[in-house]
Amino acid sequence: MTEDHRYTVGVDFGTLSGRAVVVRVSDGAELGAAVHAYAHGVIDHALPDGTPLAPDWALQAPSDWIDVLKIAVPQALADSGVDPSQVIGIGTDFTACTILPTTAEGTPLSDLFPRRPHAWPKLWKHHAAQAQADRINSLAAEGCEPWLPRYGGKISAEWAFAKGLQLLEEDPEIYRRAQRWIEAADWIVWQLTGVETRNVCTAGYKAIHQDGAYPSEQFLTTLNPGFVHFTDKLGHDLAPLGGRAGGLCASASRWTGLPEGIAVAVGNVDAHVTAVAADAVRPGQMVAIMGTSTCHIMPSDRFSEVPGMCGAVKDGIVPGLWGYEAGQSGVGDIFAWFIENSVPAAYENAAVQAGLTMHEHLTALAEVQRVGAHGLVALDWHNGNRSPLVDHDLSGLIVGQTLATRPEDVYRALIEATAFGARLIVETFEKAGVPVEEFVVAGGLAKNTFLMQTYADILDRPLSVIDSAQGPALGSAIHAAVAASAHPDITTAASAMGGRTTAVYTPDPDRARTYDALYGLYVDLKERFADGSIMHALHALKNGGAARKGNA
Amino acid sequence: MTEDHRYTVGVDFGTLSGRAVVVRVSDGAELGAAVHAYAHGVIDHALPDGTPLAPDWALQAPSDWIDVLKIAVPQALADSGVDPSQVIGIGTDFTACTILPTTAEGTPLSDLFPRRPHAWPKLWKHHAAQAQADRINSLAAEGCEPWLPRYGGKISAEWAFAKGLQLLEEDPEIYRRAQRWIEAADWIVWQLTGVETRNVCTAGYKAIHQDGAYPSEQFLTTLNPGFVHFTDKLGHDLAPLGGRAGGLCASASRWTGLPEGIAVAVGNVDAHVTAVAADAVRPGQMVAIMGTSTCHIMPSDRFSEVPGMCGAVKDGIVPGLWGYEAGQSGVGDIFAWFIENSVPAAYENAAVQAGLTMHEHLTALAEVQRVGAHGLVALDWHNGNRSPLVDHDLSGLIVGQTLATRPEDVYRALIEATAFGARLIVETFEKAGVPVEEFVVAGGLAKNTFLMQTYADILDRPLSVIDSAQGPALGSAIHAAVAASAHPDITTAASAMGGRTTAVYTPDPDRARTYDALYGLYVDLKERFADGSIMHALHALKNGGAARKGNA
Repeated sequence: MTEDHRYTVGVDFGTLSGRAVVVRVSDGAELGAAVHAYAHGVIDHALPDGTPLAPDWALQAPSDWIDVLKIAVPQALADSGVDPSQVIGIGTDFTACTILPTTAEGTPLSDLFPRRPHAWPKLWKHHAAQAQADRINSLAAEGCEPWLPRYGGKISAEWAFAKGLQLLEEDPEIYRRAQRWIEAADWIVWQLTGVETRNVCTAGYKAIHQDGAYPSEQFLTTLNPGFVHFTDKLGHDLAPLGGRAGGLCASASRWTGLPEGIAVAVGNVDAHVTAVAADAVRPGQMVAIMGTSTCHIMPSDRFSEVPGMCGAVKDGIVPGLWGYEAGQSGVGDIFAWFIENSVPAAYENAAVQAGLTMHEHLTALAEVQRVGAHGLVALDWHNGNRSPLVDHDLSGLIVGQTLATRPEDVYRALIEATAFGARLIVETFEKAGVPVEEFVVAGGLAKNTFLMQTYADILDRPLSVIDSAQGPALGSAIHAAVAASAHPDITTAASAMGGRTTAVYTPDPDRARTYDALYGLYVDLKERFADGSIMHALHALKNGGAARKGNA
Repeated sequence: MTEDHRYTVGVDFGTLSGRAVVVRVSDGAELGAAVHAYAHGVIDHALPDGTPLAPDWALQAPSDWIDVLKIAVPQALADSGVDPSQVIGIGTDFTACTILPTTAEGTPLSDLFPRRPHAWPKLWKHHAAQAQADRINSLAAEGCEPWLPRYGGKISAEWAFAKGLQLLEEDPEIYRRAQRWIEAADWIVWQLTGVETRNVCTAGYKAIHQDGAYPSEQFLTTLNPGFVHFTDKLGHDLAPLGGRAGGLCASASRWTGLPEGIAVAVGNVDAHVTAVAADAVRPGQMVAIMGTSTCHIMPSDRFSEVPGMCGAVKDGIVPGLWGYEAGQSGVGDIFAWFIENSVPAAYENAAVQAGLTMHEHLTALAEVQRVGAHGLVALDWHNGNRSPLVDHDLSGLIVGQTLATRPEDVYRALIEATAFGARLIVETFEKAGVPVEEFVVAGGLAKNTFLMQTYADILDRPLSVIDSAQGPALGSAIHAAVAASAHPDITTAASAMGGRTTAVYTPDPDRARTYDALYGLYVDLKERFADGSIMHALHALKNGGAARKGNA
């Protein structure tokens, strides 16, 4: 078979490092991989020259991304034993919205103004534009802007417009010099091809591009007269996912050791390409990428404004279908917080004695419990609630503690709470008329068997699990194969190169029935606290303000 | 002054030990003290012969109490240097309801039937009569028994009728042989005097004696036909507090080394005599005895059926006034539970390094916080709620946790929660028309200065603190002085011999204002969960039943 000798490279740009894989286009076999950690990591205290940053800032350095091309790609090639001449394409995915100001030629303004914080790329988790996001949301709600409901009723401070407005208002000169305001997902493709492209995915999910248009100039000028022509800095001709952005340019060929002219795929987002890697791009296949938080990605042939979801974007996951995204703000982060702050020394000693991590030790104690035996139910809002409540100022809650409550009880209750949160998202989609046919797990938490079984029991449906341990990079390699025309479309390529195992975990009927009762209590709690009445007042008191009731 | 040479002995019978003090009647000076730990402690797993006990049982051994008279009293006398001939009276107080079956002569049935669990004294915290208490409460509520509202709407499983009904139904032979069913508070006085007396305090608070009568025979026979003559086993002629029960008998004189014939005071309860020791027996002086739990004792000239309080008893604290009792089921117990189960090793190491206990270490971290800075509010229901909700099946709740929440934040929130619980009790009394003029603290937690300041800020009133570190024993000695006619009445004696310091802690106006806001959130939470809807369902699930909603 000739396909056995054709390969693509996928590169996943994460928060702290970039990962490259070399993949066979016929069957998706991963033949080599390499990881390169960013030299600057997350820049959240001071610029490289020592210029301090305000709280909630998070930046990255473009040179770190180029280093991944220069170092990780050649290493992965060497690791694979593949002859570079047999590589027919390269694809990339990125965190989003990670966005930077550049010149018309794509030069990052941080190269020209390295002492100016606003000249640097703002990482997805840069949270210093909340004031701008609040103004965008309130103005859009007042004016009944038609694009707002598709984002569940609120756009995020992490997204392109909030960050762009912050740039304008805090450093107008850099704003003026920024002839482009571009997702890193697209900027890296520009560096690979020498040609500027913009992908439909980030434009739709992060830059309020809907039905061929951005928000109106009237809306923008009401926000701030200087913001009126903001969308000129964005791309207006959007490239489809799986498309060929261009051929590998000479300089990128030198960096990577790959042949000049091979196909470079249109840019994409890490979560979204993971669906491709799991071969889960058909309507109703929900892929949950579970780690510190969880991102849910699902194509559908139905359109609905699902309350509280992050976005519905036409062609946003795979051309021809609506792409939905939802999220849980805290999952693994909550378990890590609990273990860091709430487990006594006696447990640490016991775990060490047993040669277990604390997660394993607590799991061993928790998993033998009968469902409900701990007498607890918790809300998983420690990091706010993304879907369906879209409220960063909500917070955690646990009820049912007695003098007999032990750490493993709380640990289990927190795991269950995140599973209830996932069930609530699934049910919200289905109630809005968007069926969820299959629940597919990817991400670091997929290896936690007790957690997975608990999700199966609580969702009361079988769980599929992605086969690859490096889903995003594999997904990018699949996109590269489509861009190189080795497969006719993403769905076909995903079927050949991606994969998942179905029904790895199946619900136990008895446990599922008791969990139905506990989930009823979770929903009851959610309804009692969804308006934020108590939690917003606590948040205000924490910040030194007066306690307020309600959503004020 | 002749009074300088007259002394009394007070003996406090606690849960694990008995304490004797020798006190000067003129001014209450404590000249000597001794403690004797009970040989059998709390008998809660097996009888001394090995006969196993069911869960929730808690018994004591009468011989342990006699040992306190034989050992602690002579030791205290020796410690004081007082010539026993100068001792003019002895008074005692006991935990309640701690109750035992005896012959008509006062011989404990455990002396005659040592292998029969029901023959032994049931300690106050024997909780195995809940089923009987539930039946008593539901029958009383159905029949609108007039005595029920004075106990806040529910009698406790700890009290004389529930324990007596359990005895009848589980060991009818012992029930039949029990010619007396007597509080240990009265039994010990019987041993000291050779004469049976019954005090108004335990009869009123623990044995449903109101306005000269017990519950009717009709009520009792409906509960169980065999229970119809139960009250024959109780005393019908009640002795007033501060009264002389009799003279010290020959055998008790030999045990104690005290002169035969000296006054023995009528029996009393540990919490109630503490009010005397604090010289806080005037209307509106609320004494909070704060330890693992808190008991609130307050005389008043007003009668009201205060919702959710433990009882209102005429002459129950001091003759001539109504005596109110209320309680918080968990206070110090909640802090101890938190420290045992939720503080990580790093904190334990830091505490050791600093030479602090964990309470001190957490306090040092918590007390520097601005009020509200932790963003938390908790309900102090980990051990149920005694007043005002009278519901053992309620449980704890905490809201506001984020990924930045630290152990000291939760510790502080739990301390605040118990103070909010105290404020709720104070406000419930005042709303019912029973003014609280002064808040006086006694008990082990009084020495925790941060806790005390927090209570002052949250109650928004100055706190008085009892002067004596051994309040109950001093209170008993004061009763002895009244019984011996060294003072004309309890109030005069308390003024001469007891004492407290007023305004030891005064509220900070700024903190008090912010705490008003947090208390508003506590009350909001209380109202949302007071019906038990979620907590009862969790309790049922914990016990293996189906989740139910509401008070069912």
